[in-house]
Amino acid sequence: MNINQNYRNLNESYLFSTIAKKVNDFASKNPQVEIIKLGIGDVTLPLCPAVIEALHGAVDEMGKKETFKGYGPEQGYDFLKTSVSDYYKKHNVSLELNEIFISDGAKSDLGNILDLFDINNTVLIPNPVYPVYVDTNLMAGRKIVFIDANEENDFLPMPDDAINADLIYICSPNNPTGAVYNREQLTQWVDYALQNNAIILFDSAYESFIDDNNLPKSIYEIKNAKKCAIEFCSFSKTAGFTGTRCGYTVVPKDLVFDGMSLNKMWLRRQTTKFNGVPYIVQKAAAAVFSDVGQKQIQENLNYYKQNAKVISDTLDKLNIKYTGGKNSPYIWLKCPNDMNSWEFFDLLLTKIGVVGTPGSGFGINGEKYFRLTSFNSLEKTKEAMERFYELFK
Amino acid sequence: MNINQNYRNLNESYLFSTIAKKVNDFASKNPQVEIIKLGIGDVTLPLCPAVIEALHGAVDEMGKKETFKGYGPEQGYDFLKTSVSDYYKKHNVSLELNEIFISDGAKSDLGNILDLFDINNTVLIPNPVYPVYVDTNLMAGRKIVFIDANEENDFLPMPDDAINADLIYICSPNNPTGAVYNREQLTQWVDYALQNNAIILFDSAYESFIDDNNLPKSIYEIKNAKKCAIEFCSFSKTAGFTGTRCGYTVVPKDLVFDGMSLNKMWLRRQTTKFNGVPYIVQKAAAAVFSDVGQKQIQENLNYYKQNAKVISDTLDKLNIKYTGGKNSPYIWLKCPNDMNSWEFFDLLLTKIGVVGTPGSGFGINGEKYFRLTSFNSLEKTKEAMERFYELFK
Repeated sequence: MNINQNYRNLNESYLFSTIAKKVNDFASKNPQVEIIKLGIGDVTLPLCPAVIEALHGAVDEMGKKETFKGYGPEQGYDFLKTSVSDYYKKHNVSLELNEIFISDGAKSDLGNILDLFDINNTVLIPNPVYPVYVDTNLMAGRKIVFIDANEENDFLPMPDDAINADLIYICSPNNPTGAVYNREQLTQWVDYALQNNAIILFDSAYESFIDDNNLPKSIYEIKNAKKCAIEFCSFSKTAGFTGTRCGYTVVPKDLVFDGMSLNKMWLRRQTTKFNGVPYIVQKAAAAVFSDVGQKQIQENLNYYKQNAKVISDTLDKLNIKYTGGKNSPYIWLKCPNDMNSWEFFDLLLTKIGVVGTPGSGFGINGEKYFRLTSFNSLEKTKEAMERFYELFK
Repeated sequence: MNINQNYRNLNESYLFSTIAKKVNDFASKNPQVEIIKLGIGDVTLPLCPAVIEALHGAVDEMGKKETFKGYGPEQGYDFLKTSVSDYYKKHNVSLELNEIFISDGAKSDLGNILDLFDINNTVLIPNPVYPVYVDTNLMAGRKIVFIDANEENDFLPMPDDAINADLIYICSPNNPTGAVYNREQLTQWVDYALQNNAIILFDSAYESFIDDNNLPKSIYEIKNAKKCAIEFCSFSKTAGFTGTRCGYTVVPKDLVFDGMSLNKMWLRRQTTKFNGVPYIVQKAAAAVFSDVGQKQIQENLNYYKQNAKVISDTLDKLNIKYTGGKNSPYIWLKCPNDMNSWEFFDLLLTKIGVVGTPGSGFGINGEKYFRLTSFNSLEKTKEAMERFYELFK
C-alpha cells in the first residue's frame, strides 16, 4: 500500500499552539494579570431559546416509536431546505429545494466538494486566507496560485486575466480580514469565472453579519452566478452552532460542465459518503428561521456587532488602519509602528494582557497585521480596548 | 475547469427505487393486502431512555452561557473516547484515546479514509457487498479486484495469495450476507495483509449482534491487527442512531507506512475537513455505554435478534439454506426452486405481500439470493414468516 504522498506537502501549523503556549507562560508568571482573549474565533453566547425548545421537542420525538426518525435523506429534510429556500427569497434569490444540501458545516463541504473536480485543476486562493482552502487542495495535489489581498486593494483582490484558474475561493465577509466584496466587485469575479469556465467556491459563513443592504449576502444576488458558483453557508456564527454542527451548500442545476451536472455529482457524492445531519439538529436549524428564532439570533448577532464597534471605535480614535469591524465579526488591523505580527502579539500580551491572532498565521500577506474578534463578552471587550487605548494613545 | 471524470464510471443503482415502485404498484392494485416489509435496513425502535435523558441534559447545557459548548475537538470529546476505550477493554483490546476518532457514522469515514491512500492502490472487495465500498473507490479512480463470496465458502471468502491487494474491505458480521468470520479466518486475513503490506478496512458496524463469544467483535482481537487494520464502528444499529449520527474509527499508532503515521494523517484529514460530532450527540453516545444504557440497548438488540430467530427458524423448518440470522440482523437465503432474486421478490410480494431485498442488487454473486432483515416489529415478522411457511411448506 502506498500512502497519499501529497500529505508530505502539508505544513504543520503551530499558530494556535504557539499562541496557547505564550499565553500560558505569561499567565503562570503574572497571575495578577486578568488576560482577555480577543483571538477567539468561536461564538460564546448560548443557543437561543427557540432552538433549545426545538431540540427538546425533537429529542422527545426520538424517544417514541411513533415519531422516531431513522435514516433521513442524505441531503437533508425538506422542512429545513424549505426554510433555507425562503431565507434566500428574502434577498431575491430563488432556489429549488434540490439545489440545497444540508451539511454538518461549511468546513466539511468546502473540503469534500473537491471530490467533484479533476486533480489537474488550478486553484486560485487569496492570501491571507482561512487555511482550510489551502490544505484541502494540498492533500489532493492540486496546483495552487495565490492572489494578493493587501492594503492596496483593501484586502479585496480582483480577477487577473493573466491567471487561468479553474477553482476560485472567495470568502466574503472574509476570514481573517473582515473585508466584504460589493456587488460590482463580485460581478467582476462572476464574469471572470464565466469567461474562464471556472467555478467559484463562495464561502458565505459570515453573511449574517452584513448590515449594509448594498452588500450582497449571497453570490447568487449577482447575475449569472448560478452558472459558475457553489455557495457554502453555516449556522455556526449565525446562530451559535459551532458545537451543534449544521450548514448548507447550494449547488445550482445550471452548473453543467462537460455534459455533467455538478448538482447530480454532489448528490451522488453525498449519498455515497455521507448519511445526513442528525434529525434533532435539523429541527434546531429550522427553528433558527422561525420568526421568534430570527428575532433571538439577531439579538445575539447585535451583541457581537456591538463588540466589533467597541474595537473599531477605539482603532478609529487611535488612527490605526483596519478592515472589517463593520459587516463582519473580525477586525483586521495594521500593527502600529511598523511592528510585525508576532512583535505586536507579544506587546499586547505582556503590556496589557490582551490576546489576538498574528496576521502572519494566515499567509505571507498577513505579516504586520493582526486579527481581533468580537466574540468575547461586551464587558471584557470594553476593558481590553480601554487598555489598548491607554497603550497607544 | 474539468470535472472528476471517474464519476462517469459510477453505475446508477435502481435497486431501492425499483423495489419501491413495484411495492407501490402492487399496493395500489391490491389495497386489501397488508404488506409487510422485511427489506428494511434501518432500525425501528426509538432511542432508549438513558440516551433521551442524556440528550435533554446536553440540550439544557447548550442553552446556558456557563455550560454552552462551541467548537469541540474534531476527533471527539475525551469523555466519549474513554467510554469507547473501556468498551474495547471488555474484549481485551487496549486502545489509546488518540487512536479513537469519533465520527458522524461509519459510512462517512469508510469513504473519507480513502483520502489517505494513493490513487494507484489496488482495492480488494468481496462480492456481494455494501455498495459504498465500490462506489467510493470508483469515484477516486482506483483499481478494484472482486473476491467471490458464495455458497462454497459460506460467503466468507479467504485470502488468495495470487492477488496483490493494497486495501482490503472486510465487513463482519456482513452486510448483506450476515456471515461472520471466526478468529482463525480473520487471522489468515491479518497475516495476508501483513505479508502484502496491505491495509484492512474492517467494518464492524454490526458487532453488537454477535452473541457467540468465540467470534471476534473487533479485528484487534487478532494478533498484530493493529499493524494492518483500521476499524469502523457505529452506534447506528447498536443503539438506534441511524437518524442521530455517531460512530467511531480506530486508527492505531502502529500503522506506519513509508515513514508516515496513518494516525497522524487521519488526524490531519479530520482537523482539516471535519469539525466534529455535535456535543449533544456525543453525550447521547456516551450514555449508550453507561450501565443502564447498556442494559436498555441490549433489550432492543434482543428484540431484533428474536425477529431474526423467527425468520431463521422458519427457514430451518423449510430446509431453505441461509447465512446470518445468528450474530447478525440480516438473513441471506438461497431462493427456493432455483429462482433468481427478482423472480423470488415478485413471488413474495404478489403471493404473500412480503417485501425483501433481491440479492443481485449487492453484486453478481448475490443472484439467486435474497436478504431479509430483523428490523420490523415482532408481530409483523411473525405474520410474514407464517405466510412464508404456508407458501413453501
